[in-house]
Amino acid sequence: MENKLAVVAFGGNALLRSGQKGTFQEQLENVERTCENLVPLLEQGYSLIIGHGNGPQVGNGLLRHSAGEKAFGLPAMPMDFCGAETQGSIAYLIETGLDRVLARHGLDRKVVSLVTRVEVKADDPMFRNPTKPVGPYYPDAPSDGAVYREDPKGRGWRKVVPSPVPARILNADLAGRLAREGYIVVTVGGGGIPVVSENGALKGVEAVIDKDLASALCAVNTGAQELYILTDVPKVYINFRKADEKALDVLTLAQARQYLSEGQFAEGSMAPKVRAGIFFIENGGKSCIITEAGELGNPASGTRIVK
Amino acid sequence: MENKLAVVAFGGNALLRSGQKGTFQEQLENVERTCENLVPLLEQGYSLIIGHGNGPQVGNGLLRHSAGEKAFGLPAMPMDFCGAETQGSIAYLIETGLDRVLARHGLDRKVVSLVTRVEVKADDPMFRNPTKPVGPYYPDAPSDGAVYREDPKGRGWRKVVPSPVPARILNADLAGRLAREGYIVVTVGGGGIPVVSENGALKGVEAVIDKDLASALCAVNTGAQELYILTDVPKVYINFRKADEKALDVLTLAQARQYLSEGQFAEGSMAPKVRAGIFFIENGGKSCIITEAGELGNPASGTRIVK
Repeated sequence: MENKLAVVAFGGNALLRSGQKGTFQEQLENVERTCENLVPLLEQGYSLIIGHGNGPQVGNGLLRHSAGEKAFGLPAMPMDFCGAETQGSIAYLIETGLDRVLARHGLDRKVVSLVTRVEVKADDPMFRNPTKPVGPYYPDAPSDGAVYREDPKGRGWRKVVPSPVPARILNADLAGRLAREGYIVVTVGGGGIPVVSENGALKGVEAVIDKDLASALCAVNTGAQELYILTDVPKVYINFRKADEKALDVLTLAQARQYLSEGQFAEGSMAPKVRAGIFFIENGGKSCIITEAGELGNPASGTRIVK
Repeated sequence: MENKLAVVAFGGNALLRSGQKGTFQEQLENVERTCENLVPLLEQGYSLIIGHGNGPQVGNGLLRHSAGEKAFGLPAMPMDFCGAETQGSIAYLIETGLDRVLARHGLDRKVVSLVTRVEVKADDPMFRNPTKPVGPYYPDAPSDGAVYREDPKGRGWRKVVPSPVPARILNADLAGRLAREGYIVVTVGGGGIPVVSENGALKGVEAVIDKDLASALCAVNTGAQELYILTDVPKVYINFRKADEKALDVLTLAQARQYLSEGQFAEGSMAPKVRAGIFFIENGGKSCIITEAGELGNPASGTRIVK
């Protein structure tokens, strides 16, 4: 049994598909389907770490906190707290879905999920330029110290939070060690709970860490050879959705940087995934595969970013 | 440095005190104060596992889910999912509070928090007798397959869930190993996410596992020598709040069983703590100390249940 370590970053639709309401049953079926696609990697003897997003889930959490405040006077908790909630609940969904898949295939692997903080730097320039809209719309901007922007479609004011770069994954060394022992490790949920250092301790901040970049840093920190970034298309494309669209099998670092600078990849979609891949390869990773879950473990599939 | 392993079960008021609204700041201050009390144990070189309750938190979570459904049409998730949410958020609070305490005292210990499922048996008799009221009050009992009881004070109908006995703490072996390596391990939050075995996999059920009993089982499974159950009184009493009230320093198994059968300890309060202590000692534990957080590490304090 070879013992290659791979980090797999589950995308948003691993849990919630567009058009779904996001019931427990729907999310569990989605996650089980995604986990089913891990079987080829598991059968090839991979050590596995799973990262995952939490965009729709933390969005729903913030709305629930807002509704709970109005209806019952319960304090609405900050975004880092809501992100921590989604780490617990999504890890539970993944453990449940994985369990069924492991049982069905007779695979004897244990799963362990770590609540994971990720350190960001207080002087990250993104803190001076919050851009990520989160939570409910308000008729007027609340004066609570946070930054609010008016929605261009006139739906009201919405909090915007920064998206700082992940600097350190807490307990990444442990995650790597446990994965190499055979545990399937769930970590950096939602990109991690963002924390900054203050007087030698870490305290939470309201921010969103890109989950692909956090998974890439986790892959670097654990010495993983491969990073899989799951999305809803089988490959990365140039001239996407144009007449001369071209699927890419391999993307060297130089090509990836070139295409990025040409604006070939959409921001908020493929561009951050390619950047996460570049970060991984620049920092010693062997290959980053961007693909859809159904293509996992097929060596010919996806787009492979290499040096 | 001796290396005694202790499990410490944080009580409800470790996080939320009566009269508080439960803001983030309040809960963080409470948990930091509780963690400050762990310092004597840490300075004595103890390996530590922390269990904790989630009663008020999961109650608030269920209300938020109910409010989010009404206000925004977001599906209200089942109780096991809400319990998993509290494992993430409370672990995050504990990690944040502990970090500050460790930094202040120059203690070099890492913290790791595990999302923890706890297996209960599908044939546990408690499943035929759900008694634990949870979630919002309804004007009429919803017909969703769950059991509802009418509130004796006329506030409406409320879901009741069973309180089965914990049979197996998932990843307890790992929790024990990490604690012995020096990690402070947070696990069995809220008594654990209750799951039952089905076709070789574990699936969640709506139930409440007593957090002291789950912590006691965790202590047994990890071979801990000591179990600390934190509460809001310094000792266990007989004839509690009567003229002949007597604080107990030591309680043998035989005495504990005797006093329990006499109804000396209130159900929902001291009785389950004493039962958890009995369970621990019966299964090889050395001593169970029931006390308030401020008394931790003082060998003369609390009530010690021994063989």
